[in-house]
Amino acid sequence: MHNLTIDSDRLWQTIMETAALGATPDGGIRRLTLSQEDRQVRDWFRRQCEAIGCSIKVDAVGNMFAARPGINEHALPIDMGSHLDTQPTGGKFDGILGVLAGLEVLRTLHDAGHKTEHPLMLVNWTNEEGSRFAPAMLGSGVHSGVFDMAFAESRLDADGVSLAEAIGKIGYRGETPLGETRFAAMFELHIEQGPVLERENVEIGVVTGVQAMRWYDLAITGREAHAGSTPMDMRCDALADAAAIVLGAQEIARELGGMATTGQLSIGAPSRNVIPGNVTISLDLRHVTDDGLDQLETSVADLIRKRCGDRAQLQTVWNSPAVHFNPGCIETVRCAAERLGASRREIVSGAGHDSVYVSRVAPTAMIFIPCRDGLSHNPAESAEKDHCALGAQILLESVISHRPHQVFKDRQSLDRR
Amino acid sequence: MHNLTIDSDRLWQTIMETAALGATPDGGIRRLTLSQEDRQVRDWFRRQCEAIGCSIKVDAVGNMFAARPGINEHALPIDMGSHLDTQPTGGKFDGILGVLAGLEVLRTLHDAGHKTEHPLMLVNWTNEEGSRFAPAMLGSGVHSGVFDMAFAESRLDADGVSLAEAIGKIGYRGETPLGETRFAAMFELHIEQGPVLERENVEIGVVTGVQAMRWYDLAITGREAHAGSTPMDMRCDALADAAAIVLGAQEIARELGGMATTGQLSIGAPSRNVIPGNVTISLDLRHVTDDGLDQLETSVADLIRKRCGDRAQLQTVWNSPAVHFNPGCIETVRCAAERLGASRREIVSGAGHDSVYVSRVAPTAMIFIPCRDGLSHNPAESAEKDHCALGAQILLESVISHRPHQVFKDRQSLDRR
Repeated sequence: MHNLTIDSDRLWQTIMETAALGATPDGGIRRLTLSQEDRQVRDWFRRQCEAIGCSIKVDAVGNMFAARPGINEHALPIDMGSHLDTQPTGGKFDGILGVLAGLEVLRTLHDAGHKTEHPLMLVNWTNEEGSRFAPAMLGSGVHSGVFDMAFAESRLDADGVSLAEAIGKIGYRGETPLGETRFAAMFELHIEQGPVLERENVEIGVVTGVQAMRWYDLAITGREAHAGSTPMDMRCDALADAAAIVLGAQEIARELGGMATTGQLSIGAPSRNVIPGNVTISLDLRHVTDDGLDQLETSVADLIRKRCGDRAQLQTVWNSPAVHFNPGCIETVRCAAERLGASRREIVSGAGHDSVYVSRVAPTAMIFIPCRDGLSHNPAESAEKDHCALGAQILLESVISHRPHQVFKDRQSLDRR
Repeated sequence: MHNLTIDSDRLWQTIMETAALGATPDGGIRRLTLSQEDRQVRDWFRRQCEAIGCSIKVDAVGNMFAARPGINEHALPIDMGSHLDTQPTGGKFDGILGVLAGLEVLRTLHDAGHKTEHPLMLVNWTNEEGSRFAPAMLGSGVHSGVFDMAFAESRLDADGVSLAEAIGKIGYRGETPLGETRFAAMFELHIEQGPVLERENVEIGVVTGVQAMRWYDLAITGREAHAGSTPMDMRCDALADAAAIVLGAQEIARELGGMATTGQLSIGAPSRNVIPGNVTISLDLRHVTDDGLDQLETSVADLIRKRCGDRAQLQTVWNSPAVHFNPGCIETVRCAAERLGASRREIVSGAGHDSVYVSRVAPTAMIFIPCRDGLSHNPAESAEKDHCALGAQILLESVISHRPHQVFKDRQSLDRR
């Protein structure tokens, strides 16, 4: 057993310190990936890690790996990490907490002169947000072989600047070969970005995986007509169809225990006194299981067909299967929370995270803490200092106590099923 | 009795001739009010009227009055007219038919050397469409005292050009005092712009009035939240609210025999995976009676309150009470249709027309003919040649047979009720 306790004040102060880099007047952060603000926080991150004896490597997509040696030189490192980039209207915690809590863990170990069996690693993944360069989780995706480097470099921002150009400009195209850095395990601490833990007054979410999700575009064709001279029973109103589908999909999602959201709706040539003839909506369907999502999709497609026949075109634009985190890693987090007496529950992440892609190449799990009102991607995003500290302590407990061989045994038993 | 028959071929040819002024490749017309194309059609209109012995007067807002003397010099003229301006994606008939059928009536009388008891007048009203300068029916509104000239002149188009500037530029600011030209009656022939006559295979709509209509903006505030991490039962989805209100208002309208349309819907900061926190929609409610519209409004406001409480703000942006055309004028149209053996039905116009404002200062009625698929404000807008001719013949019958004193008696008896 150890006697290591992270420094809650130092962690909080560090969060507030980096919040100044790209700070917005409303208390938020605008630190778009590979921007000058991102360079500032990267330089700062490098200095802090080096100050406690860690070495920094950077790969071609700008992922930063801070390494702390372990007792066993030949063991793969156990990884912590998340991302320091933000949304244009980002807050102080999304991603940032995972990196800075990792830094706090390394500082605590450094101050105590504690040597871990495995080497440790702390990663700042490039462009998790995807708001400057789509898609999201690009750095962890390239690392994990989901995207190739040519694809990543070709991404353009709204001003037509390529990711290749942007990464060169801030000097963060590194030489560490892509994907070379392997981990024995990865733990990511994150705010929930949802309201469940707060509502249930639970301190820690033991994240068992990530929902399956699919994105669709639905185009509905009706018939434009005059709002004053077309009787209600002679209309073919594409907006009424869209409204019925938005509500119907949500009803089906409730029944099947999934989620359905329409975040975008546009009317072709909208006019106050014209019955809409063309409407396009987005559909975001999610379920904790792939089968559940298939069923949800079938039911929603059915609803659309019944309502619109061949006047509607449903197109899948993105598909992300359910992710099941590594049982051994999940168990490590659960036990750590238990030892610390934290109130906890299992939770499936509704949002994507770097851990989704990393879990394809390394045993992975996540730790959630509550955030106020479930709010995220918003300057008002907020988490309690005590929850941040508890999350960081569980992260520390996890990386110290995790036993990779146990994980591998579990994985094999999973594979045999 | 007379033996006057309008020339169907000439009328059709005239429609096709003016359709060249502002013609678009798709068979439509783009002849925005007070544009160079509008000037061309105005010059053409002036020449045609003068060629058959009519004199043209123009008022300050550009309304053109073509006068044909009657036997009784002291009688007020009986008026025909509509508008020659079009929507940006206009067709060949909306408004245009009313003016050109009036011209055909004057030509027929001229060719036959027929003198009417009352003088006749044919008016081309400025800016009925309201698509370049809002609001619609501006010329007839100024004439009728609904808008003052300063208001009209201050209207700006999308390029910031004022109506005053535009009218000067095409040379159609006339000197006839505003509203000085009075009518004993006004008859406007128009395509229905709706599908009712076509569906019922009826040739003539005897228009008894115009629906009451009100326009609203509804702003709904929900709470923006992540589409993946916010359970269905913890959402405050402004788009779901809007969808329920769009559908609910239509259901109420059906029950109450009115109409409800949402032609505009916008999401604040729309994003595919964000539950909308702010949605604004337009609402267009109509009913043939003012009481009916009041009831419709009350029920829809109730629905909104029940669904959204104080999260929704409903604002009236326009209100147009029901218009009841003059019983004597309506009777004149009905009798004319009867004499000609035309199939006919009473109909309430769903759309606004110049007659709405003119009816405030003169006894007025309208004549509708069917249009294909009820389509209007569209290059594909279409009406049958025979229906155009029948409408023009009924217009001729109406202006010849109308007896204003009968109208005034009816008005008095109405006033006594």
